[in-house]
Amino acid sequence: MKKIRAAVVGYGNIGRYTLQALQAAPDFEVAGIVRRNADAPRPAELKDYPVVADIDQLGDVDVAILCTPTRSVEAYAKQILAKGINTVDSFDIHTQITQLRRTLDAEAKAGGAVSIISAGWDPGSDSVVRTLLQAIAPKGITYTNFGPGMSMGHTVAVKAIPGVKAALSMTIPTGTGIHRRMVYIEVEPGHDFAQVAAAIKADAYFANDETHVVEVSSVDEVIDMGHGVNLTRKGVSGTTQNQLFEFNMRINNPALTGQVLVCVARASMRQQPGCYTMIEVPVIDLLPGDREDLIAHLV
Amino acid sequence: MKKIRAAVVGYGNIGRYTLQALQAAPDFEVAGIVRRNADAPRPAELKDYPVVADIDQLGDVDVAILCTPTRSVEAYAKQILAKGINTVDSFDIHTQITQLRRTLDAEAKAGGAVSIISAGWDPGSDSVVRTLLQAIAPKGITYTNFGPGMSMGHTVAVKAIPGVKAALSMTIPTGTGIHRRMVYIEVEPGHDFAQVAAAIKADAYFANDETHVVEVSSVDEVIDMGHGVNLTRKGVSGTTQNQLFEFNMRINNPALTGQVLVCVARASMRQQPGCYTMIEVPVIDLLPGDREDLIAHLV
Repeated sequence: MKKIRAAVVGYGNIGRYTLQALQAAPDFEVAGIVRRNADAPRPAELKDYPVVADIDQLGDVDVAILCTPTRSVEAYAKQILAKGINTVDSFDIHTQITQLRRTLDAEAKAGGAVSIISAGWDPGSDSVVRTLLQAIAPKGITYTNFGPGMSMGHTVAVKAIPGVKAALSMTIPTGTGIHRRMVYIEVEPGHDFAQVAAAIKADAYFANDETHVVEVSSVDEVIDMGHGVNLTRKGVSGTTQNQLFEFNMRINNPALTGQVLVCVARASMRQQPGCYTMIEVPVIDLLPGDREDLIAHLV
Repeated sequence: MKKIRAAVVGYGNIGRYTLQALQAAPDFEVAGIVRRNADAPRPAELKDYPVVADIDQLGDVDVAILCTPTRSVEAYAKQILAKGINTVDSFDIHTQITQLRRTLDAEAKAGGAVSIISAGWDPGSDSVVRTLLQAIAPKGITYTNFGPGMSMGHTVAVKAIPGVKAALSMTIPTGTGIHRRMVYIEVEPGHDFAQVAAAIKADAYFANDETHVVEVSSVDEVIDMGHGVNLTRKGVSGTTQNQLFEFNMRINNPALTGQVLVCVARASMRQQPGCYTMIEVPVIDLLPGDREDLIAHLV
């Protein structure tokens, strides 16, 4: 059986775990890694793969897995879809997903390719659970409670504040979709902790949440990439109240994102040209193997 | 917007809750009820609907929701698909699902119709969760723990044993997919409880499970249609071990089945002719409303 040739575009945390998931998948072949600076020192695990600055240098590629920062996803996807290569990404700005989908839908159809966007765990696999629960108990409220775990976006926001030498922003769920922010920082010499803490709390990322800032001697020593979700829905099926649902995860964050990306890369090979979110893709398409076997074992 | 005209075929427990879910759905119209004995005394809630013995008497029908016993599903589905009417069911004999899918796939394609089978909560919505978890943590074990709740199949098996006047078989989860059976019975006069209990424990439905039989004065007083699931997976994403997932439900059993049937009846209008299980249908197709709105709110 011909393997799916995948390129990993961007090689940070997510790129590294995506490569591991590709290596573990029975139906994929790694075409190579695309990095802005292809001549950068090469980690040991890349020694057997081409590392290039331009995807065209990788020969035939079926799907590009975009592991770039979220804000670069659109530009990379457009460029690659135009070549007729599928793209998948974990674009995570919830409010801009439908706009990205429209834009890439046109590009994908023009290129005769498939794009699956916002495919991480939230947005991503959590979205599939949310949609399923909304369907089977149509009235009610779903709460998505994140953490405890490191928020990448909030951590970056803290690092941008003057006087912050190193930072970690943890998301702590307090129920009903409300979160506390626990921010751990090292302060630059010559800066006052109290002032820096006040600036963090005033930042738009934190102003609306209960935020605590704690000074530590080493941020590195308190970082852990475990994360989690507790997603609940209490709703009504037909006219029957009090139907209770709960989905919990305790996971390594980039490892799960990398695995989801590989799943949707596979699924992209089975869709008609266009752009999709995960809730628009049958879950069976995420899996390798014989369809009837999967049905026999999973349904 | 034209509403989807649905017929409810069979009017036991599931049929009754399916009707409630249809009435609560914004995009459905109840075409009528098909019962073997259309002249049977008619419950009050059916007074405004045609109750017929033959689906042809209902005029245009888009989809027939089969609420018959599992063993009658195939015969009804074949007959109705041949008329070009979609069918959905909650066929629940796990080992016969792929065979039913093959048979009905041919019938559906011949009739230019769609059939979605085994769409309750297990098989059904649980299958979607199992498939998703298998995809995002490909190595590992999923345990589906049922209950505490009433098992319809086991209860029927107990009732067939000589000396049993009334029965309830409860499924009690003891973890790792292993279940205890708690059987509550009323004994027919002239029969010995100990002998009846021994016969139940020797029955094929119970012989392999830890089974306890308890005599009660009224089975009716201990019946409750609440049920539940605790579905767990501990697995590997890429090469990262110990990814932990859990899905829990506490639900009214026939109410959830009825609601899932209505969701897949809707989804059947959006598939190409053929037969599908729920894991082959995008979850977004289960929901009414504008697709982009759903994506904005759920992804």
